[in-house]
Amino acid sequence: MKLSDIGEFGVISSIRSDLKDFQKEVIVGIGDDTAAIKVSGEKLLLFTSDSLVEDVHFKWDYTSPFQVGWKALVVNISDVAAVGGNPTHCLVSLALPSDTERNLVREVYRGLKKAASKYRVGIVGGDTVRAPSFIITVSVLGEVKRENIVLRSGAKPGDLIYVTGQLGSSGAGLACLKAPNWKVKPEIRQFLIKKHLTLSPRLVEGQKIASSQIATSMIDLSDGLASDLHRLAEESKVGAVLWEDEFPTALATEQLAKVMGKSLLEWILYGGEDYELLFAVPPNKKEELKQTLSFPHTLIGEIVDRDQGIYLKKRGGNRTKIEDRGYNHFSASTK
Amino acid sequence: MKLSDIGEFGVISSIRSDLKDFQKEVIVGIGDDTAAIKVSGEKLLLFTSDSLVEDVHFKWDYTSPFQVGWKALVVNISDVAAVGGNPTHCLVSLALPSDTERNLVREVYRGLKKAASKYRVGIVGGDTVRAPSFIITVSVLGEVKRENIVLRSGAKPGDLIYVTGQLGSSGAGLACLKAPNWKVKPEIRQFLIKKHLTLSPRLVEGQKIASSQIATSMIDLSDGLASDLHRLAEESKVGAVLWEDEFPTALATEQLAKVMGKSLLEWILYGGEDYELLFAVPPNKKEELKQTLSFPHTLIGEIVDRDQGIYLKKRGGNRTKIEDRGYNHFSASTK
Repeated sequence: MKLSDIGEFGVISSIRSDLKDFQKEVIVGIGDDTAAIKVSGEKLLLFTSDSLVEDVHFKWDYTSPFQVGWKALVVNISDVAAVGGNPTHCLVSLALPSDTERNLVREVYRGLKKAASKYRVGIVGGDTVRAPSFIITVSVLGEVKRENIVLRSGAKPGDLIYVTGQLGSSGAGLACLKAPNWKVKPEIRQFLIKKHLTLSPRLVEGQKIASSQIATSMIDLSDGLASDLHRLAEESKVGAVLWEDEFPTALATEQLAKVMGKSLLEWILYGGEDYELLFAVPPNKKEELKQTLSFPHTLIGEIVDRDQGIYLKKRGGNRTKIEDRGYNHFSASTK
Repeated sequence: MKLSDIGEFGVISSIRSDLKDFQKEVIVGIGDDTAAIKVSGEKLLLFTSDSLVEDVHFKWDYTSPFQVGWKALVVNISDVAAVGGNPTHCLVSLALPSDTERNLVREVYRGLKKAASKYRVGIVGGDTVRAPSFIITVSVLGEVKRENIVLRSGAKPGDLIYVTGQLGSSGAGLACLKAPNWKVKPEIRQFLIKKHLTLSPRLVEGQKIASSQIATSMIDLSDGLASDLHRLAEESKVGAVLWEDEFPTALATEQLAKVMGKSLLEWILYGGEDYELLFAVPPNKKEELKQTLSFPHTLIGEIVDRDQGIYLKKRGGNRTKIEDRGYNHFSASTK
């Protein structure tokens, strides 16, 4: 059934009927002019939004509607994680061509609801409009204790740079999707593709880093390590050096690069969408960090003076500039 | 200059540089992963979003980028007004084709900032993505005292139905835009076109209606009197009768209908985008309302039992059903 057969209010009512979860503190949800939410007043309110556009942020060829819905919400949750906060509510704006199948919308919402349920976010409203192409914009509210918030600004020369999890898997997974004919072991292909398509924001990790008050600065890696490090450095007015020997990677990513003759470093620095957290920690808190953080994290570099720029220290001591590129929406895509 | 020449971060930094107004209570604004806002805790938080799509909600042929920016924010402010609230902060998500002129983005933001300044709303973030067509999605936060909030639900049979301002001017203005060859007095054309293009949300009026606690139910007229009355009736589980003799209209709208042989009633009921407020008031509060509301408002009907449906009482006493149509995004447009 096409959306043109059921109309806008049909879309809304079919969405509304099963969005009853996590409506805690929600006085008014979907169905009125605006959602109304009770707030505590002791915390800071977080407010962020992100859009996914078909053929720009994902391709239907290898992304299911469920995965698009999931991703649309969790990229925002990752932004909330990056300041150490807790996501609470969201609005979903869907722009859809008239000939969109109703089932596609259901599947997008199934993905949204799965993510909403996992991360305990209430879907409290939004709108659905006709458009030439599919775009989903999710706005998320969250909260954080004022004393815990970690911003992009705040990093100081001498701070150590850490990253959660592993780098480059998502870029390698996207490369696999784009090259179905690559002769790679199925388990490697499947592992990397799954990494790319079913991303998990580092919510618990971000909250732990924030509540332990050890980090001076934090950002989530969405556009890519290189691009996001440039953003953090800009806001903190610092430079940075990354140590090439220290990047944490998955064995599958390394093997894929080797077998296919691709650059592992390219995926790590510019691949994007790893959705790990990068954070800076004063050197005197190194021991405290070791004792506090029980999840995988790796020391990959150091904050330096702004005039030194942002560079990579290669094996052997050579320095090369890390370019400020990644996923730039208005230039030729690097992915 | 095209956006493809300056890139996403160029767009963001050019936007960011002059959005310093109304950043009250904003701890973190544009430039970090999420905006962070101080909240009072005594009020309810309002959270709403709306999208405008080129060729669906407006046409560049007769809408300036400034007007699009203005409209994108004020349609949300109208939603906040419809519950009696006060808008405080917003995020702007722009989806733009790569060949969009930088100046168009500047003009859209000039419109947004003009509206933000007039209604004292802080623009605290958002994102900018590449897309096949222009879509702007604005998410707005607001606040309202819990005891004052007026919802779509709450209307009871016997309540009187009031509307602020005048009806049908926006629909008549759109008709003028679509028919540049109509032989109409220039002052009539200009008046109606201005009504359509530079809409003013009834913010002060909504707040006054809410704070005086005389209304049982309220909605803003965006899709049209007919469609929005159906929405209010649905949420309140009631029916409604409107009195055709009582509709407030501008002289220009009446004259245009007469001269061009068009249906005034069609513009009033189904024209949409008047952005007036429709509200229901218990009959015993009629006198109090008269003494309280100092802005134009008109009694246009009555809430009835749900099983009576939603109908128009014509001159002479005849009843006709009011259809549930207006601007439906997934059917053939009625505008």
